[in-house]
Amino acid sequence: MQKIAVIAGDGIGTEVMPEGLRVLRAVAERFGLALRFDEFDFAHCRYYEQHGQMLPDDWKDRIGGHDAIFFGAVGWPATVPDHVSLWGSLLKFRREFDQFVNLRPARLLPGVRSPLAGRGPGDIDMWIVRENTEGEYSSVGGRMYAGTEREIVIQETVMSRVGVDRVLHFAFELAASRPRARLTSATKSNGIAITMPYWDERVEAMAAQYPGVAVDKFHIDILCAHFVQRPQHFDVVVASNLFGDILSDLGPACTGTIAVAPSANLNPTREWPSLFEPVHGSAPDIAGKGIANPIGQIWAGAMMLDFLGHRAAHDAVMAAIEAVLADPAAPRTPDLGGTASCAQLGEAIARAA
Amino acid sequence: MQKIAVIAGDGIGTEVMPEGLRVLRAVAERFGLALRFDEFDFAHCRYYEQHGQMLPDDWKDRIGGHDAIFFGAVGWPATVPDHVSLWGSLLKFRREFDQFVNLRPARLLPGVRSPLAGRGPGDIDMWIVRENTEGEYSSVGGRMYAGTEREIVIQETVMSRVGVDRVLHFAFELAASRPRARLTSATKSNGIAITMPYWDERVEAMAAQYPGVAVDKFHIDILCAHFVQRPQHFDVVVASNLFGDILSDLGPACTGTIAVAPSANLNPTREWPSLFEPVHGSAPDIAGKGIANPIGQIWAGAMMLDFLGHRAAHDAVMAAIEAVLADPAAPRTPDLGGTASCAQLGEAIARAA
Ligand SMILES: CC(C)[C@H](C(=O)O)[C@@H](O)C(=O)O
Ligand SMILES: CC(C)[C@H](C(=O)O)[C@@H](O)C(=O)O
Repeated sequence: MQKIAVIAGDGIGTEVMPEGLRVLRAVAERFGLALRFDEFDFAHCRYYEQHGQMLPDDWKDRIGGHDAIFFGAVGWPATVPDHVSLWGSLLKFRREFDQFVNLRPARLLPGVRSPLAGRGPGDIDMWIVRENTEGEYSSVGGRMYAGTEREIVIQETVMSRVGVDRVLHFAFELAASRPRARLTSATKSNGIAITMPYWDERVEAMAAQYPGVAVDKFHIDILCAHFVQRPQHFDVVVASNLFGDILSDLGPACTGTIAVAPSANLNPTREWPSLFEPVHGSAPDIAGKGIANPIGQIWAGAMMLDFLGHRAAHDAVMAAIEAVLADPAAPRTPDLGGTASCAQLGEAIARAA
Repeated sequence: MQKIAVIAGDGIGTEVMPEGLRVLRAVAERFGLALRFDEFDFAHCRYYEQHGQMLPDDWKDRIGGHDAIFFGAVGWPATVPDHVSLWGSLLKFRREFDQFVNLRPARLLPGVRSPLAGRGPGDIDMWIVRENTEGEYSSVGGRMYAGTEREIVIQETVMSRVGVDRVLHFAFELAASRPRARLTSATKSNGIAITMPYWDERVEAMAAQYPGVAVDKFHIDILCAHFVQRPQHFDVVVASNLFGDILSDLGPACTGTIAVAPSANLNPTREWPSLFEPVHGSAPDIAGKGIANPIGQIWAGAMMLDFLGHRAAHDAVMAAIEAVLADPAAPRTPDLGGTASCAQLGEAIARAA
């Protein structure tokens, strides 16, 4: 029996989560998987409004023993500032469960229009591996001379050898396992001249241990340009916390899949649960309308199945997503150019899975 | 008489600079402008190889009194690490001449293929205003436990009220002067939770003084996605040093103009010279072949003319660039799909100006 903590969160998180669960339950039955889903009603801004914090005091006891966390989306800026809700939940999970790898695909899918000219399915297929616990998201720093003309605000970027090496190790292993075996490192050592040259050094040291992996590096500015101009070049891209954040929105945007992309926050040691979520956030602008695209949540569920050792079930979900997207007669949510509801699209995928 | 310091620098900087000067001399004659060009043979890696530093000790005396600096490109990583050559020249100029605004256009031009599907001239027309002297490019920080498993590297992002407000002021003034009067702020206050909420605060404070400017903000990750998905939304985009660096490569990449975009490093107080350069760097891969596209250098020259008060001459250069790009019979460098040399394209624009 594998135990999955389910946290739907805010906004469209509560709409896409039932569809994610619907598909997971369908494949669990089909493949005879023993999965238990425990739903938790915290880590959302309604909870914050009632309790003045995002999580109950014993949150770590309650979900820390699960095999995985299936997460929707968090954030409702109308009532709670984003940095309060995020640092009080999602970013806290990433840190305290030491989910040091954030893994996201950018892949052209059938039936999804890319904003790039002349690209078709197969042309873009990359993984973005993001450091997920330190770097630019340090929360160390402060303000001086506050409220005066001399005001100054400082925030530290912190990189540790342990932190950098473990995510590089993951990325090199992933690259080595892929047919093209190419790894691209995102840097900015020409401008951010203390931390980023260190990142480059560690990449070089690790590259020496993987002679079979073709390694290159680009500064983040021109790398973003290359995502638009020649995305077919990339296979595995490894990046610091901030650069990975940027690239893992830009990559899916280039494939037209930002509404359907998943995000896996992995603790590869399995000491603590890993967390699987869609890339899209709580989307207050469309929340409550029932029109959110549930594919990001469903795809996140597929990545979770894979991580839990259920490769065939993962493949079935991915095949179902691709079959439904490729079928012009299948339901499509408004972001895909159709008029279907979130539930209709979720049902179609559950049936195909 | 206005005095312009000319520094060609490294790589294709030495190839595009003569074309930039050719066009400037042509319009100076046509419009009767009294411009003097003083060429300086430092701020390049050949200089570093001879002298162990990028600049002579008296560099500030020699170019600090000029009205502007016309700059090519710097960097030759085969012999000098980028962070050494850049911090020893270009980034030093930006700091010591207090060029606190970096201003770059992203505009769809006739005859240039955009990588985005279905976009044509007029669809994208924005200015990116980048803070250019502080923020993430602080050069404050260091390394501890070096060479051991406990190694840790820290770099500080530093934002000052003075530094943030002056670039916001420039951006709001620019937005207020434009027909759409829209200003977008790049942030990441949900993740970079000390400096970026401060940036947001200052944007809000400044916005209160410009009721006629429509203001919005996006986190840098989704903002990059929007550049690809709906670039027509943007008019003036203001950003910190790092975010501005990223957006001002991504914007031109989306318009297909990264090889032709200019960059103005402005000191609006005119206490020290401003610096005008193409966005592209020294491009070691094509250096020495005579095939670099000189339009970035020429367009930078046009921005310099405008800043020096020669609006009509600026307009003539821009019209010449557009006319040559739009003319299928005109010379085109390989990056534009042709076989012309750098000099042939430069001559064509000089003739049209
Ligand atoms: C070369 C590099 C240091 C520089 C920067 O990051 O500022 C360049 O990318 C730019 O945008 O002018
Ligand atoms: C919401 C935000 C703090 C978060 C991040 O920056 O990590 C999000 O953009 C993501 O990528 O998961």
